[in-house]
Amino acid sequence: MTKEEKIELIIRRGVQIFNEDSLREKLNSGKKLIIKFGADPSRPDLHLGHTVALRLLKDLQDLGHEIVFVIGDFTAMIGDPSGRSKTRPALTFDETRKNGETYFKQVAKILDPKKIRITYNSEWLAKMTFEDVVKLTGKYTVARILERDDFANRFKNNVPIGIHEFLYPLMQGYDSVALNADVEIGGTDQTFNLLVGRELQKDYGQESQDVMVLPLLVGLDGKEKMSKSLGNYIGIDEPANVMYEKAMKIPDSILFEYFKLTTDLDLSEVEKWIKEDIILAHKKYAEEIIKMYHGEEFIKEAEERYKTVATGGIPENIEEVCIEEKEFLDGMPYPDLLTKSGIVPSKSEARRMIEQNGISINGKKENDINKKFEISDFKDGFLVIQKGKKQFKRIIIKGN
Amino acid sequence: MTKEEKIELIIRRGVQIFNEDSLREKLNSGKKLIIKFGADPSRPDLHLGHTVALRLLKDLQDLGHEIVFVIGDFTAMIGDPSGRSKTRPALTFDETRKNGETYFKQVAKILDPKKIRITYNSEWLAKMTFEDVVKLTGKYTVARILERDDFANRFKNNVPIGIHEFLYPLMQGYDSVALNADVEIGGTDQTFNLLVGRELQKDYGQESQDVMVLPLLVGLDGKEKMSKSLGNYIGIDEPANVMYEKAMKIPDSILFEYFKLTTDLDLSEVEKWIKEDIILAHKKYAEEIIKMYHGEEFIKEAEERYKTVATGGIPENIEEVCIEEKEFLDGMPYPDLLTKSGIVPSKSEARRMIEQNGISINGKKENDINKKFEISDFKDGFLVIQKGKKQFKRIIIKGN
Repeated sequence: MTKEEKIELIIRRGVQIFNEDSLREKLNSGKKLIIKFGADPSRPDLHLGHTVALRLLKDLQDLGHEIVFVIGDFTAMIGDPSGRSKTRPALTFDETRKNGETYFKQVAKILDPKKIRITYNSEWLAKMTFEDVVKLTGKYTVARILERDDFANRFKNNVPIGIHEFLYPLMQGYDSVALNADVEIGGTDQTFNLLVGRELQKDYGQESQDVMVLPLLVGLDGKEKMSKSLGNYIGIDEPANVMYEKAMKIPDSILFEYFKLTTDLDLSEVEKWIKEDIILAHKKYAEEIIKMYHGEEFIKEAEERYKTVATGGIPENIEEVCIEEKEFLDGMPYPDLLTKSGIVPSKSEARRMIEQNGISINGKKENDINKKFEISDFKDGFLVIQKGKKQFKRIIIKGN
Repeated sequence: MTKEEKIELIIRRGVQIFNEDSLREKLNSGKKLIIKFGADPSRPDLHLGHTVALRLLKDLQDLGHEIVFVIGDFTAMIGDPSGRSKTRPALTFDETRKNGETYFKQVAKILDPKKIRITYNSEWLAKMTFEDVVKLTGKYTVARILERDDFANRFKNNVPIGIHEFLYPLMQGYDSVALNADVEIGGTDQTFNLLVGRELQKDYGQESQDVMVLPLLVGLDGKEKMSKSLGNYIGIDEPANVMYEKAMKIPDSILFEYFKLTTDLDLSEVEKWIKEDIILAHKKYAEEIIKMYHGEEFIKEAEERYKTVATGGIPENIEEVCIEEKEFLDGMPYPDLLTKSGIVPSKSEARRMIEQNGISINGKKENDINKKFEISDFKDGFLVIQKGKKQFKRIIIKGN
């Protein structure tokens, strides 16, 4: 493939491009471009949704361009001063750096980590004074920022918007100024913020970056954007067997999108699989992502485990948790056992699961919330707790 | 008069008070209160409109409270970064200090300058970082700031509002936090900003200041708030004769307000004057303000000059301007003569005034724009230029 052909394939991946001619010209110019990509340090676990952009960045990296990750640690450190947003907790400096490391360990599965430039936007934003902020905010009007979909909706529905929230898009836009970015990549939900960068650069006397807006990967629920907080994700660091199970659950109607946006497989081949045998197509997808993020050697085991679970048995290779014998002296309340096993995060969640008939003990549903466990319940020294269809823990009694 | 009676008279002067009970309690507590008053350093010329608040501050000063003038030099130095507002030009640090001095020279005509505390809000605002700004802006919502009348109207009518403009009320409010103000005084047009201070103090863990909103003095046009930019003002530093003339032009219908808001005269007496002889009432007012801001000894001359001008004659005591003889060698163009005399600021204004028949030479209208002046036009070595009814300059030829 020629360089020009590669560039055309890259450009085709944008849902929207501002502006396509200029982007094509820049990519063909032979100049080493500064490609900006914003990373959120408060959620360091990458999932397949993130890989849509990362894989594009990899191709741009292969063409010789400089990929700059901007970690929004400044906003992350500030958090939400109004205390309204639960999705934006304040992080400490150390947390942002630790999350940054976790993030890049995962990014290294896709891009060449030696050729990545990592920046934290506190490097320039923390230095700005009130005067600088007034100058920055003077570049933008209230009406235009209220055009952003989420602001427009909240304003219309009288849901409070803190004035500080108007500052975030401007910070993000200013990052482009600080980097003198040539191109920025982001998802469709970031379109507004990406364009703010274009305009601020012009206001600060720079050439505007070109913006490539990429499609969002729909999550396993078939509705919302893939996101960790919605639980509809496949993480690229998740164990192979979890990946396999989740891949089998991708709604049929969007499986093609998954192939298209997250793999390099031949799409005409993919169409054939989906048409002829949708189960096979799911398996092919599961195998491909395990190969990409773990290695071919992990496929077999994941597949076998999946078969066992799918047929309702208790798989052999499940996690073991030790509890000391003396803790059972007076009998252990059922919710306490569940919490200690780690299969639920809290006793209230334990109670909820028991009452909803979601827990089995040794393969048998057990919904007596007042049950207390004794040593005698542990035949052969262990019992198996099952939550839902696919989560298992083997509890082992540990004597002194 | 007892202290309690004085306090009641003070409280009665507020158009609105937030909150009256708390203010009364504070004033009666015997505690030395911090009374905040915001001053705009971009317009250092004080007029009677300003004295409504200054006279109240004087009474509070006499009760032993600390009057703190906050000069908004921080915003004045920044100006309007969007370049949209012509009324808010950026000032240099030196200009804000120079304006501050001019301002306080005038304030000293009303308050005891030794007991005034002067602060510049750059002292605290210039030190704030982007993080501090985010925290400050997080205390306020977009919807609430859009409740401010001028913002609401502009937003409704699609007149752009820069995001930085949302920051100004918050800065002004933060000034109250920085000073830990007990009471703030301001005009009705400042109500919104005064209340922001109340709320921010609460957010920053302070007791809220009480706010006294004072009536605005209507200008000489009888419509708009008195303001220098509208030209409908009587400056407290203007010459006595100008004060006299302007006082005579106050619309009859608002003369009582002028007495009430800007003098200490007995209002039942004033009512009688206005009812019996409105011209006399105007004269009494003119005399009173000359007495207040210049001294009783300036009344007579101002009154006589007013009579001369009112009857159309050329007053005796007018300003003289010298022009050198040699400048008339080739004849001096009419607009050049006017500009040199200083009676108009520019040649284009000179031409406009001549064409509109607004200039007299030696008491005779002269509207030939192409006329050139020769030495022979100067009988007895001078001529008198008159602009409109009341402005005169005597031009004297100076030989070598």
